[in-house]
Amino acid sequence: MPLVNLKDIQISRILAENPASKSINILAKFKDRDGDVILLISKPPFTKDLMQNIISEDTLAQVQLENDIYSQYSLTPKAELNLLKSTVIYPATEKHINKYSDHQFYLLQETPNDYRNITLPFIEKNAFSAQWVERILKHESESENIIFEDPDRDTGFILLPDLKWDKKQLSDLYLVAICHRHGLRSLRDLTSSDLPLLRNIRNQGIAAIKEKYGVNQSQLRIYIHYQPSYYHFHVHFTHVKYEAPGSVVGRAHLLEDVIENLELFPNFYSQKTLSFVIQECDALLAEYRKCGRLT
Amino acid sequence: MPLVNLKDIQISRILAENPASKSINILAKFKDRDGDVILLISKPPFTKDLMQNIISEDTLAQVQLENDIYSQYSLTPKAELNLLKSTVIYPATEKHINKYSDHQFYLLQETPNDYRNITLPFIEKNAFSAQWVERILKHESESENIIFEDPDRDTGFILLPDLKWDKKQLSDLYLVAICHRHGLRSLRDLTSSDLPLLRNIRNQGIAAIKEKYGVNQSQLRIYIHYQPSYYHFHVHFTHVKYEAPGSVVGRAHLLEDVIENLELFPNFYSQKTLSFVIQECDALLAEYRKCGRLT
Repeated sequence: MPLVNLKDIQISRILAENPASKSINILAKFKDRDGDVILLISKPPFTKDLMQNIISEDTLAQVQLENDIYSQYSLTPKAELNLLKSTVIYPATEKHINKYSDHQFYLLQETPNDYRNITLPFIEKNAFSAQWVERILKHESESENIIFEDPDRDTGFILLPDLKWDKKQLSDLYLVAICHRHGLRSLRDLTSSDLPLLRNIRNQGIAAIKEKYGVNQSQLRIYIHYQPSYYHFHVHFTHVKYEAPGSVVGRAHLLEDVIENLELFPNFYSQKTLSFVIQECDALLAEYRKCGRLT
Repeated sequence: MPLVNLKDIQISRILAENPASKSINILAKFKDRDGDVILLISKPPFTKDLMQNIISEDTLAQVQLENDIYSQYSLTPKAELNLLKSTVIYPATEKHINKYSDHQFYLLQETPNDYRNITLPFIEKNAFSAQWVERILKHESESENIIFEDPDRDTGFILLPDLKWDKKQLSDLYLVAICHRHGLRSLRDLTSSDLPLLRNIRNQGIAAIKEKYGVNQSQLRIYIHYQPSYYHFHVHFTHVKYEAPGSVVGRAHLLEDVIENLELFPNFYSQKTLSFVIQECDALLAEYRKCGRLT
């Protein structure tokens, strides 16, 4: 039976807070039911339509500070114009609680030796299945979403919108290019012999996005994640204005830089120490801990 | 006279919207007064105290979707528990309107030639005054904020909190190290002869932050901006969890990478093409346009 109000809910503890995105995750109990409930609560973005109603007599303004031409106010719009969005998970398992809890982040430095001795064995042992990638490459799923395909087995790729993009506006444009070639795990594996693949993804990716969405090259941030979330080589294309999750330094490497580094130094990525951000809950971190590589 | 409600305000147009941070900038007129007014409206973060009041009988819940253990709701808390924050600027000038308007962003690629022919002459012509930097280095201002100083003229620096950090919590820790040496403009100027300076900033910066705030090296993202906002060499230290503005690829370069690139290739940064994000309103962009370097 759906909730009518929040009277039967009692907060156990705050799992996570994100002041930047104005969201909070709460672990709670129902007063009259067993088990844990999780509430994910966030403030939705403003919309133009709603602003017309908020800028009105019904919105009370209380001055907090006045200084010359600047003043600061607390505004109290009518409650129904200023809703919160909530996802409720009930009954919540330990796995849910872990997923929605604040995790510690670490920035690790992976030397070429660390890669050989820690990361590579970990990747190989876990043999991450990327069944969904295979299905895309074989046109068994999402084929209606494909924006562009170059079928070449060596330098070809499929370009399609990332699931994070709702395709409603260009301001958060997010596409991904997945290469056809197998066996290329990540940035670490790239050498100058992969330059034809990288240049092909860059040039044809840019052209396809220009053709389909009218977005110019100078409006695109094109990058590779390290560590990637799956070990089949792929490239991210996002709108330059959109500071997408994972576009920060310590995770993202501009494709343009990768190409030029390999042009100048053919084995750049197998010789370099690569820094990456990792979460407490990531199993790879445990491997680094075991080897005493966390400072 | 301060506003009591928003009845006398009429929206002219939306200047900018930021769905990620839940804020909106509005240009408007007072019905009874001349001149432009700007309203910067944002949704404040959640606080733990307020959540205790929001999770109550007074918060209405309207179900939007139910699927197995997941359900989605619109919540209507009492209006006074869910305020908006607003800054009002009146009368607003063209300069204010420009400052608070959405600008186009571009990602430019600066070759070594572009730097010599476009960027460097622009920097030299404009001779950006960084009087406030000089005042810090001479202990004429903010000296009470200095966390650490190494006075060496060649490899020394001052470490202090950035003004963006309110110092209330470590989750958005933000410090900046400003070198004592003059004449080092940016990343472009660095060669392997600057490694003692860079290593000194890294090592002593990390040690000082550990000592003062108890934050470990693995919790720090340490980086250099290109282009920087002022051309006196400095390094940013932020909490790894905090994806600070300017920590995205296309602006931020990890100090660790910079050091290693110079160890491997002494002239790396004078030989490389450097990509950077630039706003429509930046005068440097106009120079790139003139030279036909915007694609």
